[in-house]
Amino acid sequence: MDSMTNKLKLIRLGLDTKYEFMVYIHAGCSIDKSEGFETYTQVVVSCNNKSIVATLTIVTSDILKMNQASLSEIAWQRLGANEGDEITITHLSPVTSLRYVRAKIYGNTISSQGFDEIMTDIVAGRYSNIHLASFITACAKENLSITETTDLTNAMIRTGEILHWDHPFIMDKHSVGGIPGNRTTPIVVTIVAAAGLMIPKTSSRAITSPSGTADTIETMTSVTININKMREIVNKEGGCFVWGGAIGLSPGDDIIIRVERPLDLDSESQMIASVLAKKVSAGATHVVIDIPVGPTAKIRTDQTFLRLKEYFSIIGKTVGLNVMVLKFDGIQPLGIGIGPALEAKDILAILRNEINVPSDLKNKAIDIAGAILELGKKSPLGKGKELAKQILDSGAAYKKFIAICEAQGGFREPTSAPYIYDINATHAGLVTSIDNRNLAMVAKLAGAPHDPAAGIEFFAKINTPVDVGQTMYRIHAQTKDELEYAMAFARSMPNIVNIIRD
Amino acid sequence: MDSMTNKLKLIRLGLDTKYEFMVYIHAGCSIDKSEGFETYTQVVVSCNNKSIVATLTIVTSDILKMNQASLSEIAWQRLGANEGDEITITHLSPVTSLRYVRAKIYGNTISSQGFDEIMTDIVAGRYSNIHLASFITACAKENLSITETTDLTNAMIRTGEILHWDHPFIMDKHSVGGIPGNRTTPIVVTIVAAAGLMIPKTSSRAITSPSGTADTIETMTSVTININKMREIVNKEGGCFVWGGAIGLSPGDDIIIRVERPLDLDSESQMIASVLAKKVSAGATHVVIDIPVGPTAKIRTDQTFLRLKEYFSIIGKTVGLNVMVLKFDGIQPLGIGIGPALEAKDILAILRNEINVPSDLKNKAIDIAGAILELGKKSPLGKGKELAKQILDSGAAYKKFIAICEAQGGFREPTSAPYIYDINATHAGLVTSIDNRNLAMVAKLAGAPHDPAAGIEFFAKINTPVDVGQTMYRIHAQTKDELEYAMAFARSMPNIVNIIRD
Repeated sequence: MDSMTNKLKLIRLGLDTKYEFMVYIHAGCSIDKSEGFETYTQVVVSCNNKSIVATLTIVTSDILKMNQASLSEIAWQRLGANEGDEITITHLSPVTSLRYVRAKIYGNTISSQGFDEIMTDIVAGRYSNIHLASFITACAKENLSITETTDLTNAMIRTGEILHWDHPFIMDKHSVGGIPGNRTTPIVVTIVAAAGLMIPKTSSRAITSPSGTADTIETMTSVTININKMREIVNKEGGCFVWGGAIGLSPGDDIIIRVERPLDLDSESQMIASVLAKKVSAGATHVVIDIPVGPTAKIRTDQTFLRLKEYFSIIGKTVGLNVMVLKFDGIQPLGIGIGPALEAKDILAILRNEINVPSDLKNKAIDIAGAILELGKKSPLGKGKELAKQILDSGAAYKKFIAICEAQGGFREPTSAPYIYDINATHAGLVTSIDNRNLAMVAKLAGAPHDPAAGIEFFAKINTPVDVGQTMYRIHAQTKDELEYAMAFARSMPNIVNIIRD
Repeated sequence: MDSMTNKLKLIRLGLDTKYEFMVYIHAGCSIDKSEGFETYTQVVVSCNNKSIVATLTIVTSDILKMNQASLSEIAWQRLGANEGDEITITHLSPVTSLRYVRAKIYGNTISSQGFDEIMTDIVAGRYSNIHLASFITACAKENLSITETTDLTNAMIRTGEILHWDHPFIMDKHSVGGIPGNRTTPIVVTIVAAAGLMIPKTSSRAITSPSGTADTIETMTSVTININKMREIVNKEGGCFVWGGAIGLSPGDDIIIRVERPLDLDSESQMIASVLAKKVSAGATHVVIDIPVGPTAKIRTDQTFLRLKEYFSIIGKTVGLNVMVLKFDGIQPLGIGIGPALEAKDILAILRNEINVPSDLKNKAIDIAGAILELGKKSPLGKGKELAKQILDSGAAYKKFIAICEAQGGFREPTSAPYIYDINATHAGLVTSIDNRNLAMVAKLAGAPHDPAAGIEFFAKINTPVDVGQTMYRIHAQTKDELEYAMAFARSMPNIVNIIRD
């Protein structure tokens, strides 16, 4: 089709729509007339030989002239466009891979080719949020078989880049999450790298939790590192803490996760595929997976744990990974801090061998690091923990932590929030259980993770005796309003910490 | 919370985002700072004692000043706001009804209270498109039981207005759809109203088809009629053809449908609840439901038809409706036209008793009208069709049609599209089957329903003998590009009309 006469000149309107690609044109302009576009349809926007699929918004005011168009901030970035560049807008062909999504909804199986087509369309931006939400929901629960989950994993790997390293042992770890404060990664990576193994760790930001590992580390150093810089850091220091979204390994997964987040929905198959695809893409050969099990954790029963363990091991093998799955106690938060900066403070205390560090977090990090050291043949079986503890106690891990932070752009101390409020016990007794989900909700309402210093300090571990009026947890917030939202919710949920009277 | 200092002044930017409520503020303005908002979160916007939930977009250019805000066009409308009015923006509390959606995804039942809370939140605008897509997907297939479907129906009824009429017999009809050109409503309504029964018909726009009844009628008269005007028209003429979206009966259903449309997903339970809730809200007492069954229709097997019939009858009874379900042959399009204006031309030809009218469409309209006349006691059992035919042949139906159009703002002839292209038979033979889904897709790519004159004229009914080169169907388009998209797709699908060689 002739698009020579259908060019519009870009001007910047500074519209930040987060991850949504939007294109703005004036009502009745040449493109609008010739193509018969409707507002809020998906269209193909081309500029400088790059294309994206964007949602069209039609503008009737004079913020745009007839021959002008604008883009949302993320669309400027993705197209590498500048003011004055010309764009063309064309119709989007029907997204044929949606037939596989519909078939799944109606109870059928998605083939390997189906997943490849779906992921290709997702990576190309052809799925709107509505389509992504439907795909995620259709694949949630236990709706994908082990074969389908394998095919989804492979589709995620094929639609992204794969890193290659010149070593036979490339280590990695992953925590399934659901336990506030479960932030072992910075400690594990530094111990393993200090032991001389290579661990090119990428981490995600929070999906449904008050903080992701990338959010926590970002309070201490930069995590937005490109792929070449990451290669350089890992080759020099043996390890890194990089935000996976910045390097774009398995980019389809990143797109899926941003829709999973507002759905507050964790799909088991998506999670397995997401984790394993990320590991293969990062070039890993050996992976330790930490699964906390507890009544309000993400994984609640031994039965689910065993199914996950089987899936991770079998699918891992199929895609070329040696996977070790470890079960941990997931009945309560780890460490004291919940939220990016507050978790970072726990990590620094442990790495610096301070007095009174949270021993639960420290011991778990040592367990995981020990398993990785054994898997990577740095220690005989049964001796990994001992070696890990020695590296931590000697200060070698902290030295490695600072070295990696320096390589990533410099170390900084995490900040503190200006507003705090204590939630105190209304009666004396013994703490018998903790509602991790609603505790995480309080931290999120307080502003975590988007306010890095927001969150919770948690003092009421299970089996702790408490007096009336004693502080069970402390809410931290960046603004007064957010503090009040979190307080109101916390007060409406008195059983977040369950105290049985003596 | 004190919001006295947190007011922003509205200016109009003319941003048309269709059904999406959006609010635009400048980065770093007082509200942004005090509330710690993030772009693209859902917030509550209040103005003149009205509130909506909208998506926040943060603007960094000078199209907004620090103390200004803007809204998407639909949000101006809903808030009844004017330039210069002041708004406040506050955080949205967690949408607690989403827990029922998650429970459904995990295989549990949604209670009556669950559906009430979900529909209340949907009507209040608290569900983003992502949440709506997930809810629709979770309820798709046969995932809702008959009890759940009843509860959903009641929730839709409770969250909207109900019309009351001073008559014991308030008639209504509904066609399940999936058959291009199945546009009996204007003919049925006029026959029934001409017979002296009351039929306050509301119709929808297309969800996944090339035209909805409201789209077709809009090419001949206005269908955007408010509730008071509708009452007046029905009390005067006995019937009306009104776009349901304009009068806002079961408003939650309208919100769900706009997300179902891009998903191209028809959920059986949603459909039943949607149809019955609309009928109860319109004040109907007796309803005839037309279900076409055929291999490429929406309902493909007798088994599905029987289940639907049972659901419609039982749930109808529970919510106070006398429902008669009729099965029709759904193997091919009805009439000649597919698309708003082309279908309107068929309807006018039948109402005007022209020579060579499409007899399939005429006979089906008479069948349905006959059933309604019997149900409304205007005719003895078995004599309804005869009376319907008589009213149509006498010109009384056409007279009533024009009277209703005049009451709705005046009658106009449907327009024609400037671009046409014929798809001809590549070999001689007998037409044995038609792919209705892909035929509809050609009409949609040609621009239907958003270009009213776009669509298809279809000439190759089943059992028609065709010569090589004979026109099977003619594509109509408003723009050259859309014609080309439709042509390209039609050529890639040579089996839309299946011709067996002699």
